[in-house]
Amino acid sequence: MDQTNPMDWIQRECTLAARPRGFHLVTQEVLAALPEIREIEVGLLHLFLQHTSASLAINENADPDVRGDLERHFQQMVPERAPYYQHTLEGPDDMPAHIKSVMIGSALSLPIGQGRLRLGTWQGIYLCEHRQHGGRRHLVATLLGKKFPPG
Amino acid sequence: MDQTNPMDWIQRECTLAARPRGFHLVTQEVLAALPEIREIEVGLLHLFLQHTSASLAINENADPDVRGDLERHFQQMVPERAPYYQHTLEGPDDMPAHIKSVMIGSALSLPIGQGRLRLGTWQGIYLCEHRQHGGRRHLVATLLGKKFPPG
Amino acid sequence: MDQTNPMDWIQRECTLAARPRGFHLVTQEVLAALPEIREIEVGLLHLFLQHTSASLAINENADPDVRGDLERHFQQMVPERAPYYQHTLEGPDDMPAHIKSVMIGSALSLPIGQGRLRLGTWQGIYLCEHRQHGGRRHLVATLLGKKFPPG
Repeated sequence: MDQTNPMDWIQRECTLAARPRGFHLVTQEVLAALPEIREIEVGLLHLFLQHTSASLAINENADPDVRGDLERHFQQMVPERAPYYQHTLEGPDDMPAHIKSVMIGSALSLPIGQGRLRLGTWQGIYLCEHRQHGGRRHLVATLLGKKFPPG
Repeated sequence: MDQTNPMDWIQRECTLAARPRGFHLVTQEVLAALPEIREIEVGLLHLFLQHTSASLAINENADPDVRGDLERHFQQMVPERAPYYQHTLEGPDDMPAHIKSVMIGSALSLPIGQGRLRLGTWQGIYLCEHRQHGGRRHLVATLLGKKFPPG
Repeated sequence: MDQTNPMDWIQRECTLAARPRGFHLVTQEVLAALPEIREIEVGLLHLFLQHTSASLAINENADPDVRGDLERHFQQMVPERAPYYQHTLEGPDDMPAHIKSVMIGSALSLPIGQGRLRLGTWQGIYLCEHRQHGGRRHLVATLLGKKFPPG
């Protein structure tokens, strides 16, 4: 264990562009907002979505059918207009959005090594948008790690 | 990146009061146990529930119908007395509780900035109690961050 | 808060042995790969699975029926050959595996205190293998924490 480099912290609010309901690959959008990842020898990236009707996940970055099937399955598993919903004033897509957000989660932590996210070959970061018109989504990104030694 | 302040760690066991089965807002109870959050300029709060039949989540802090609908939907999606359950000796609510705990998760990481949790306006911390009589629940709270500079 | 010991980081790739589809207890396999946990007074262990068809969870470490029931319930809740799946070329167990991976999650953070994982008495680490023949699974383990003071 190398104790020579102090800990660094960066925290930044990022805004993700508005997207329709569904599972969307946002890896490039997130990386573009956090160029300091390249300076980190070892660390973690913590992403936190400040919303209760969208979520963050990691899954396959290649075939878009995976993202379509995820959307179709979650619509089935968490249907609109279930007879037992009482929170209905904000539209039929609102309560299912809260349930999906609890199931998938609002926070994500990812390892950083040698200046890069240590994602697997087929992994990407998903914004899971559960509302029809969710608008832009706000993220708090917290980066903690040890910088490369100087020189 | 400011390298002048060393890293601080606090780890503490907290006990959440016993609650009936359902989704419960515990933001104030958690914050009251961790007054040191106010001293952190930037950091993370990690919460870990030491149980296998309850979970932690983030969701809406306003309309209590959201929490009621979550409970009703999870009861539907993970029913009691499914014909394929073999772990049945601890009561009909036990195996569904384990499944819900795996789905929602036992750990939660939240960003801290400027002495506060960086939750969105509508977000609160939920204890998801999956047993009828789960009793008090034990949390390990780990706080890591950079303190405000002195003076 | 003790500010005398600097932050330490360890990051290591671990490989988990191949297992059949199901929920598997891997606590001992993970701990054996990370002997440095014993040197950490307070910290966190972050585990990240570099795959999109398996996941990590925390649940009961005792009765194996819990793990069997989890497998049976997830097979029911996320069935093979759903009529709306379009990502079908990689076999009937592939798309359900992606969905389960999004539901349960690829990352896990656990508290470390006094040289040990702060798991509850009944908690263990699960590898949730969602493919019939998923093969060996790669983990990135990131350990951050404050070492015990020397002497």
